Amino acid sequence: MHGFTLHNYFRSSTSFRVRVALNFKGIEYAYQSYHLRKGEQRSSAMLDLSPQGLVPVLELPDGRTLTQSMAIIEWIDETCPGPPLLPSDVYGRARVRSLAQMVACEIHPINNLRVLKELETSFGADSATVATWFRKWVDTTFVPLEKRLEAEELTGLFCHGDTPTMADICLSAQVINNKRFSVDMTQYPTIARIHERCMDLEAFNNAKPELQPDAE
Amino acid sequence: MHGFTLHNYFRSSTSFRVRVALNFKGIEYAYQSYHLRKGEQRSSAMLDLSPQGLVPVLELPDGRTLTQSMAIIEWIDETCPGPPLLPSDVYGRARVRSLAQMVACEIHPINNLRVLKELETSFGADSATVATWFRKWVDTTFVPLEKRLEAEELTGLFCHGDTPTMADICLSAQVINNKRFSVDMTQYPTIARIHERCMDLEAFNNAKPELQPDAE
Repeated sequence: MHGFTLHNYFRSSTSFRVRVALNFKGIEYAYQSYHLRKGEQRSSAMLDLSPQGLVPVLELPDGRTLTQSMAIIEWIDETCPGPPLLPSDVYGRARVRSLAQMVACEIHPINNLRVLKELETSFGADSATVATWFRKWVDTTFVPLEKRLEAEELTGLFCHGDTPTMADICLSAQVINNKRFSVDMTQYPTIARIHERCMDLEAFNNAKPELQPDAE
Repeated sequence: MHGFTLHNYFRSSTSFRVRVALNFKGIEYAYQSYHLRKGEQRSSAMLDLSPQGLVPVLELPDGRTLTQSMAIIEWIDETCPGPPLLPSDVYGRARVRSLAQMVACEIHPINNLRVLKELETSFGADSATVATWFRKWVDTTFVPLEKRLEAEELTGLFCHGDTPTMADICLSAQVINNKRFSVDMTQYPTIARIHERCMDLEAFNNAKPELQPDAE
């Protein structure tokens, strides 16, 4: 397959998720960067692709576009041959989606760049206050996520069994993001173990922010 | 089918989503309420069901539990006979999930009760400031959501074609939530039209907060 373009940004956590999924399925893609701090995602070129003006956007070979990282990953998993990113049983899929959404719906949105900026603008939050906010929402969900992964017998080398899924993609994206705000990962040994295992895989490693063409 | 228990709260927007999906598939369930403002979701009974201490939790007839509303809805759609909540084609599914996630990942998490409480605690935000915050994040995503629904030809009587999907469930949950903060819906005629159409359906109407046994 060819002709995909990923509109994204090296540091964007949701962009990382899609890069991993594409790598995992062996899909080559053109890399188009939008510098978020410079507001390039609100350029007219981007708004033509997606009225939300958010990365990532996956442009398909036929010119259609997909938005929202979790929807894009489900599309990739449904259409592209290669190792699956969701289990074959329905309960397993629900568990993986639930673990993924603990990150995607409970941590990431509240700690998104535009929310952190709003704290500065509306409440005069300084960088220490912003970091406290960031860590608060990570801990609020990482504590029960660690508990689940530690206790549930379906956890294996990865979040669900011994092969990576959508849950591992979200977990790793968040752990990478955490580094910018010095989250103490010693509190989360299971999450840390799974993240390390993920980063040993080429699909994850090659999606890392610092290896992208627009990395600073 | 019988033996389902929905652990939820009448006013919870994510609980509404799951109630609609259950109603839509004609699944009967026991209604177990947790008063969020009183912190009942952090009771040991709830934490045994889900370490996150968040509603909704769907308890299955076999005693297993599902968490995260979007994962629960996918499970319901995959396992329960009845009208589908996702289109049969892969691009359609990606579009519906993307529209749903615009609400589920871009609006709801930032406007969740616990985030609004944190604004009060950490920044001394008063109720007017909290309302401004709430409306800001609704508008940030409703403007492009309206634009997409208005412009994209796959929109029909509902978000995607002429039958309701997961996208309509999230859209309606958000519009209902908006009422508590006086969001001006005249800016969003397409969203408003779709919401009204949804609320004409029994599955949506019967899931309304004010019709639940714990309504105040």
